[in-house]
Amino acid sequence: MSSADAPPVAGGSLLIAWQLNSKNVLIVGGGEVASQRIDSILATDAAHITVLAPAKGLHTRTKELIDAHTSRITYYDRRFSGPAEIHKMDMVLTALDDVNRSREICEMCRKARIPVNAADIPELCDFYFGAQIRDGPLQIMISTNGNGPRMAALVKDKIRKALSGGEGEAIERVGALRAKLKERAPGVGGQLGRRRMKWMSQVCNTWEIDDLTRLDDAAITKLLDEGWEKNTVPSPQQLFHCSKFAHSQVSISKTWPVLGSFVLGAVCTTLVFLARRR
Amino acid sequence: MSSADAPPVAGGSLLIAWQLNSKNVLIVGGGEVASQRIDSILATDAAHITVLAPAKGLHTRTKELIDAHTSRITYYDRRFSGPAEIHKMDMVLTALDDVNRSREICEMCRKARIPVNAADIPELCDFYFGAQIRDGPLQIMISTNGNGPRMAALVKDKIRKALSGGEGEAIERVGALRAKLKERAPGVGGQLGRRRMKWMSQVCNTWEIDDLTRLDDAAITKLLDEGWEKNTVPSPQQLFHCSKFAHSQVSISKTWPVLGSFVLGAVCTTLVFLARRR
Repeated sequence: MSSADAPPVAGGSLLIAWQLNSKNVLIVGGGEVASQRIDSILATDAAHITVLAPAKGLHTRTKELIDAHTSRITYYDRRFSGPAEIHKMDMVLTALDDVNRSREICEMCRKARIPVNAADIPELCDFYFGAQIRDGPLQIMISTNGNGPRMAALVKDKIRKALSGGEGEAIERVGALRAKLKERAPGVGGQLGRRRMKWMSQVCNTWEIDDLTRLDDAAITKLLDEGWEKNTVPSPQQLFHCSKFAHSQVSISKTWPVLGSFVLGAVCTTLVFLARRR
Repeated sequence: MSSADAPPVAGGSLLIAWQLNSKNVLIVGGGEVASQRIDSILATDAAHITVLAPAKGLHTRTKELIDAHTSRITYYDRRFSGPAEIHKMDMVLTALDDVNRSREICEMCRKARIPVNAADIPELCDFYFGAQIRDGPLQIMISTNGNGPRMAALVKDKIRKALSGGEGEAIERVGALRAKLKERAPGVGGQLGRRRMKWMSQVCNTWEIDDLTRLDDAAITKLLDEGWEKNTVPSPQQLFHCSKFAHSQVSISKTWPVLGSFVLGAVCTTLVFLARRR
């Protein structure tokens, strides 16, 4: 939802991760909302974007994006001309002030069964956008089902603060570990497949996110040699043969108010005793 | 992704909230993964589900769901028979052990431009599922882009812990506030629309989630009378004329280790002094 004024939508949505590899996305319009749409599609690293909008109406940000991503964006300085525009498109996003034009485009797309989103006209949309967080392979979407982007942004802030920032890297390293494991123990399904899944789950369940980020290629080889091959899951301490420096840092920062209070209590009591001695 | 063994996917996905109001979803298969798919679609409160699977292969959970939701699920005790099955469907999900059959169904869907997901065969999918959190109108999706459901579950746990549990209700109350405001100041866009959006944003930015959950119908009327009409945003304290009980509870629970340490410090020092006196 792009507008704070959009009406609430009955029923929940199905949140899905749509695949845009080698797909064509048409964006009709060049204003601020169009620039947000371009940003969203660029973030997928996958689709080719076509932008249709008269140059005189382009938002500064839209212009910047078109100029900066010439290999991914094809720009036409004109209005939407008719059904031929959506031919060969896999997804269409309209971001127009003209509600009637948006409605026409949506109807064409629905006939051609092309997924379509019309900014600010929720009843015409096959799907909505939401607040997003991306950290490498990790993607998080927050949807309030049309109950306002401000609340989605508040929840997004809460989530951002709860994440360490290492999650994306940890997920990448786990992906690398799984790939190396599959080289050692190849094949799909069966008993080996089940053992592989179980061992990977144990690693993810017993290692902390911060520990997983330390799995460089050498550590992965060591973990497979000393873990997988011996049918066990070593702890990060066992694998790296060193104390958990990062963790003690965290716990010191959490315990200093407690330590400080202990000292303060001791000092106050000493003062009381000294005062009474006089 | 349903399998821990799924390969990582190149490029990010576009996370979207797909609308399933009055849509038809076909699920082919009746095993455990099929039951998870049924759960996902039921959670949207919106689509009608058709399940195609021989009764002898139904998972207990699948059978339970079919029996419990007869008005939303139509069940046929047979295998997928051919292209006629996908006629009138808006989305198709396969959850079959037979990879070749899944592939055939996906090809039929792609020809008919019907969005399709094939469990465990990422390269055939138009979209993936991810770990989900739902709290009323709030929906959150976590995708690792095929790098394993375990990591998605870890991130989901972190997010769950970071949320107070009041977010869904707060979003609902903000939706109710916006609806009431639009009754007082109707119309789309223009100067009034901008003022309305700005005022709503200020409320969301200055009120805490827990405060927003206290906006019952009477409080909404009061907030509009004392806030919107006077072009200001009263604080929750001003509106409710009482101290923030909930907040002081939280801070007590956070400060007790510090208080405890102070007392412990005092007691230890007293003991030292008493010991030295003897």
